[in-house]
Parts: sequence; C-alpha cells; structure tokens
Amino acid sequence: MTKQQVLRGGTLVTLEGDKGYGLLEGGAVAIDGDTIAWVGPLADLPEAYAHWDVTELEGRLVTPALTDCHTHLVYGGSRAREFEMRLEGASYEEIARAGGGIASTVRHTRDADEGALIAQSLPRLDALLAEGVTTVEIKSGYGLDRETELRLLRVARKLADLRPVNVVTTFLGAHALPPEWQGTKAEYIAQVCLPTLRAAHAEGLVDAVDGFCEGIAFSATEMEPVFAEAQKLGLPVKLHAEQLSHQGGIQLAAKYGALSADHVEYATEADAEAMAEAGMVAVLLPGAFYAIHETQAPPVAAFRQHNVPMALSTDANPGTSPLTSLLLTMNMGCTLFRMTPEEALRGVTVNAAKALGFSDRGRIVAGQRADLNIWNTSSPAELSYRIGFNPLHARIFGGQA
Amino acid sequence: MTKQQVLRGGTLVTLEGDKGYGLLEGGAVAIDGDTIAWVGPLADLPEAYAHWDVTELEGRLVTPALTDCHTHLVYGGSRAREFEMRLEGASYEEIARAGGGIASTVRHTRDADEGALIAQSLPRLDALLAEGVTTVEIKSGYGLDRETELRLLRVARKLADLRPVNVVTTFLGAHALPPEWQGTKAEYIAQVCLPTLRAAHAEGLVDAVDGFCEGIAFSATEMEPVFAEAQKLGLPVKLHAEQLSHQGGIQLAAKYGALSADHVEYATEADAEAMAEAGMVAVLLPGAFYAIHETQAPPVAAFRQHNVPMALSTDANPGTSPLTSLLLTMNMGCTLFRMTPEEALRGVTVNAAKALGFSDRGRIVAGQRADLNIWNTSSPAELSYRIGFNPLHARIFGGQA
Ligand SMILES: [Zn+2]
Ligand SMILES: [Zn+2]
Repeated sequence: MTKQQVLRGGTLVTLEGDKGYGLLEGGAVAIDGDTIAWVGPLADLPEAYAHWDVTELEGRLVTPALTDCHTHLVYGGSRAREFEMRLEGASYEEIARAGGGIASTVRHTRDADEGALIAQSLPRLDALLAEGVTTVEIKSGYGLDRETELRLLRVARKLADLRPVNVVTTFLGAHALPPEWQGTKAEYIAQVCLPTLRAAHAEGLVDAVDGFCEGIAFSATEMEPVFAEAQKLGLPVKLHAEQLSHQGGIQLAAKYGALSADHVEYATEADAEAMAEAGMVAVLLPGAFYAIHETQAPPVAAFRQHNVPMALSTDANPGTSPLTSLLLTMNMGCTLFRMTPEEALRGVTVNAAKALGFSDRGRIVAGQRADLNIWNTSSPAELSYRIGFNPLHARIFGGQA
Repeated sequence: MTKQQVLRGGTLVTLEGDKGYGLLEGGAVAIDGDTIAWVGPLADLPEAYAHWDVTELEGRLVTPALTDCHTHLVYGGSRAREFEMRLEGASYEEIARAGGGIASTVRHTRDADEGALIAQSLPRLDALLAEGVTTVEIKSGYGLDRETELRLLRVARKLADLRPVNVVTTFLGAHALPPEWQGTKAEYIAQVCLPTLRAAHAEGLVDAVDGFCEGIAFSATEMEPVFAEAQKLGLPVKLHAEQLSHQGGIQLAAKYGALSADHVEYATEADAEAMAEAGMVAVLLPGAFYAIHETQAPPVAAFRQHNVPMALSTDANPGTSPLTSLLLTMNMGCTLFRMTPEEALRGVTVNAAKALGFSDRGRIVAGQRADLNIWNTSSPAELSYRIGFNPLHARIFGGQA
C-alpha cells in the first residue's frame, strides 16, 4: 500500500520561484507515495491530510534532497600513490613513465570485472548518500574500448538496484585517447566511440552523451560527430568545456541544445549569452579547481547577469577531484567561486536536476518527487558555511526514509 | 579486569623513527590495557601474547589515532548568517554594525550556560571522533571575561567525561579585546587576562597558555606579561603567530620555550631557526588559510630544512575555520601547502601530540598509549588523497574499541 504521510513543525526551504530560499517556518508537507501532495503552513493543512501518518520535525530544516549531476564514480584502482609522488617532487613525465595518470585508471578499470567495480564504487556512492544525495549522474569514460565502456554503464545502472538512489548514466567515450590507440583522434571517434555509443544505446544504457573538449583531449571539431550521433539517437548532450583553456566547446554544445556545459572556468561573456539562449546550465566543479590549483574562477557574474542557472557538483574522479562530499562542494562554491549559500543550495538541488533534464525534483512544491532531506540545523546557510560537517538527520527518497 | 588483546593481519603504519611510514605488512600489535605491549611481524609474536583476545585486521591499515592540537571547539551561536552576508556583498563594517564578527560569538558564548555550550559543542566533537581523533586540544577565548573564560574551560573538561577522548585545555584570554573594554590592551591583560589565568589555574582548568599575536589582536610586547605569568605558574605556552603579518611572535614564543607556534604563514627563515633551537612545533592550519583566501603559504621548505616538526590541525572556530574534519585538513595540507601525505599523517599524529607536550602517543611502538585507528584502506597516502571521505573502520581509545 502507498504510504501517505505528513511532515510538520519544521522550517521548509522550498526554493519555489527563481529567487530566494522560499522559507516556510512552521510548515507542513503532505506526501502521497513518492510525490509531494501539498505544501504550506501547518495551520492551513487541508482536512484531507489530517489523518495521514505524522512525522514531527521538531524545528528541523527541510530542503529538497541533493542531486550530484557530474560524477565519474565508477572506476578501478587508486591514484593515491600518484598524488603522493607528485608531492614528493616527481614530474608528470616520471609519473607517466611509472604508469600513472589516466592510463593507470583505464588499465585498472579494464582489469576489474563488474563485481570488482561495484565493490570499489559503492563506498563512494554511500558517502554521497550519507549527505542526502538521491539523484546521481555517473559517466563512463575510463574504459575507452567497447567492452569496458559498456561494463561501466551496466555497473552504474546496477548501483541503482543496490541503493535507494536514482542513477542517470552518461556515455563519455570521448574522454581521452586510450593509451594503445595508434590512429588520429578523429579515427578513434569514428571507429571506437561512435560504434560503442550505438551499442550502449541499443542496450538502454545511455541517458545522455558527454565529451571532454580540451587541448589534451578532443577539439570542438573532433567532438561534433559524437553530438551529431547523439542527436540522431535522440539523446541529450553536455560537455566538459573551457576548463583549462578556451576551446569553443560551449558554442558547439549550445548549437546542439546541450543540457549543460561543465567546468567552464575559461568561458567568456559571449559563452554565457549562448548558454542562456540555449537554456543550458553551467555546472561548476570547484573540487577540480581546488585540486589542480586552478586560479581562474568561472565567470559567475556573467552567469548571474544572463540568468544562466548554476549547478555545483563533486566531479568525483580519481585524477583531478577525488571528492565525495556534496556539502563540501557547496562550501567550495562559496569560498572559491564566491557564490552565495542560496546559489550553492540551488546548485545541488533544482539547478542540478535541470542539468540532468529533470523538472520533477529539486523544489518542495506539490507535484514534485518526494525526495527530501531533514537537517539538524536551523538555517540553510549553515549547509554551505560549515566545512567537513554533516548535519543530516534523515533522507527521504521517493517518500521512503 | 584489564583487557589483553592482539590485533593481527593488517598493515601497520608505525611512524617509528623520524622518517618514513614505518610500514609493517602482516603485522601484529599486542595491547595490555591502555598500553601497547609489543609490535612486530605476526610470525614473531612472542608466546606470552599468543592466548590474548584476537582481532583479525583482514588486511586493513592501522595507524596511530589522530590528535587535533589546535581548536576553538567550545563556543555559542553561529556565524553562518555573517558568512552569507559577506557573500551577498556586505562589507566588514556593515557586518560589524549588524553585530557580527568575533563580538557576535562572544555575546552568544556569554549568554550560553554550561548545558547550552555542551549541547552546541558535542556535535563538533563527535565529527572529529568519527574520523578517529582521540586527543583534542580546546581553547577558551570567546568569553574574554573571568566568569565566561572559566565556564569555557570547565565545559572543555566535561566533554572528556561525556565522550571517550582526551581533552587538553588551553587558556586563551589574550584572544581579542572584548567589545565593552574601554582601556588599553595592556590594561586588559593586567586587569582581566592575568587574574582570570590565575583563577583558572587554581581550579586546575589550564594545561597550557596561548595568545593571538597580530595587528588586530595583541603585539609581542603586550603578550609578554601573559607568558611571564604562565612561566611563574609552571604552565607551557604556545602562540597564534605570524598569521596575517610578521609581528615577532615566534621570537617571543621561542624565548619562553613554547610548545608551538601556530598558523605561521608569515614566518621567516630566522623564525624557523629559532623554532628548531627552542624545540618548537609548527602547527599549520590550512582551514583558516582556505577560508580567508590567504595566498601566502607557511614556509614549509624552511621547516623541513631546519627539522622543525610540522603538525596540522582544524583550528575549528566559528569565524575563520568552521572546519571539523581532520582528514580534510590533511588533504588541505597536501593540496594548499604541498606537504607530502607522510608529513600530513605525522602532522595529525606524532607531531600533533608533540605540540601538546605528549611523547606517549602518536606512534605504534611498545610503551605508547593504545590509541589506534583501523581504516578500510590499503595505503596511508589514501588518507590525504581522498577529499570528503571517511574510511574509518574502528577507533581504539586506550585499548577500548
Ligand atoms: Zn568530469
Ligand atoms: Zn586558533
């Protein structure tokens, strides 16, 4: 039987509308199964909900549950020794000669079977869930061959069976050139990436298509066939763009009506305009910015001015952002990018959902999914202000605690 | 009856000696009550320990438990709204006019009774303990009057009765000038700080004496009477020194044989030499460096060259470092200060203990306290490499899990 319940007596952070927290003190939320049925002041609770199961919030804060909209959570091996070698003074060449860098992750990922990948990924997923994440995007991109790319996407789907979480899969065959590849980048795209995308799509494994548009990866010209194929298959696209330099990736992504452009430290005012025009989200990834000692912050002021929604995500990955805390990501968004705590909260709720194409979650509004967090804290700014602290009291996923 | 036990079958990070992890694979630790009785390869375990209780480590990593050697953990109120106002564009004057800054914490701390201070501090302490901290230093300094400074130190002592942890108290009456004070800084020291120190010492509440030597706080000359009084009382000293500018605090601290100088971003080569000479520890606080957007990193190379032991600590405080994760602090030490993971681990174990005057903890060596952490990870570098992830499997405090 479907559970019908009312949460009452807390402060709701509804995020209704485009500005402000939408604070509702002494509020109530009526939940019918996995959907929010009603939201308002407790005194106005309609008679129809008066006899549903009650949870007393005791003054706690309720926000939408969190969405982590950009992760590379599934991979094999560890890069801790490489991190250590760099700090001991090793050069990038020495690390590469020692088998390090992305090639190390590709090798360990190819060597890991489904069970091993699940075992290594679950603790990372559990860390996100412990902070109230209920929707997580997971990319492929450490296989770089057909068999392993498919395995990564299958593992991502299976994680959703093992934990109470929605998983959104993204095909990232255009992440890097695999170490064994002898041809051009364009040949890799044509001969490996596109056939693998078609095979993964045929198996129902792909929710969206991504690429890494950068000097060290693929140019906008090299990326375009991937987006053209995605369009043919009816799949939405997104792009790692303008992270280390300005490559024109955002303009390409905008042309294909992308969901988001991600990183975007080197985006220009014209890029912000194009993103606004195309209805794209700017997904900011301060964990990578922090870990690689980047100094150019993304153009937050331009995104504000052109009303480009900003999301925040962990970018959880073994090389440039071994980060599995979305709360810390919120603090980094404020501290490193000078976002406001309200922007940070929208960035991991309603705007992160939008970056995945969802309009059914991320606010506390009737009709939305009942994905909610109850926090042992009194103000939403606390969630961004604290560093390395998790005040989560309870996480509700589709109406289930 | 005293518990006698053997942990076996894991990788021990003993930190024996001055360099290296002191790794012992397939090692065993025999624990007699609260003390380590024997450490070595399992094959060499003496017959005398063969029948003690056994815990199988199953390949896990064992390190000394962690020490957080510099915190302001006990205070009243929250500064989240002030954090938010700054990000919304408010100036420091506007925040001060709105009652913000340290004056806000002093006001809320004075208004909070013992019970309220305990209730607000316990979640912060619990966050540290959840990552394997077994010794924590806690400073006064948000009372700035006799009654409240004593209350803060009493609360710090009580926390050790409420949780399995050693608490070391530090008197920090010379933290700031209280908002109501009308006289000179020297008069505040003479009329409030020194009498309060004597009263707190008479009550057995003081393990060490600290001050904030900075343009916005007290000069080295203004600090000296506090150190002279500590010396008279037989109490060790330490100092917040050279954080925002070079004030000569380290030279003063060295003259008084201080345990440590803390922050030390603006320390010079001559300061490092003086610290080495005086046997002082450099306590680095990357959380504050990160939160206030400091760009001058402490002189790690000079500390290495002169063999000044480096510790790392959270500096947990509501204004400049609302940080309650010592694991994240280790990552920040590596990422922001380019320390090695080995230096980071020594910084939160043996060197943090030394900064508090302890030589009985922080290594896995016979005769040391049995304060140990068992981690779900295979290499010590993982502890610094990961960001926002806690792989603690079990924490052993004085032999008790
Ligand atoms: Zn990424
Ligand atoms: Zn401090």
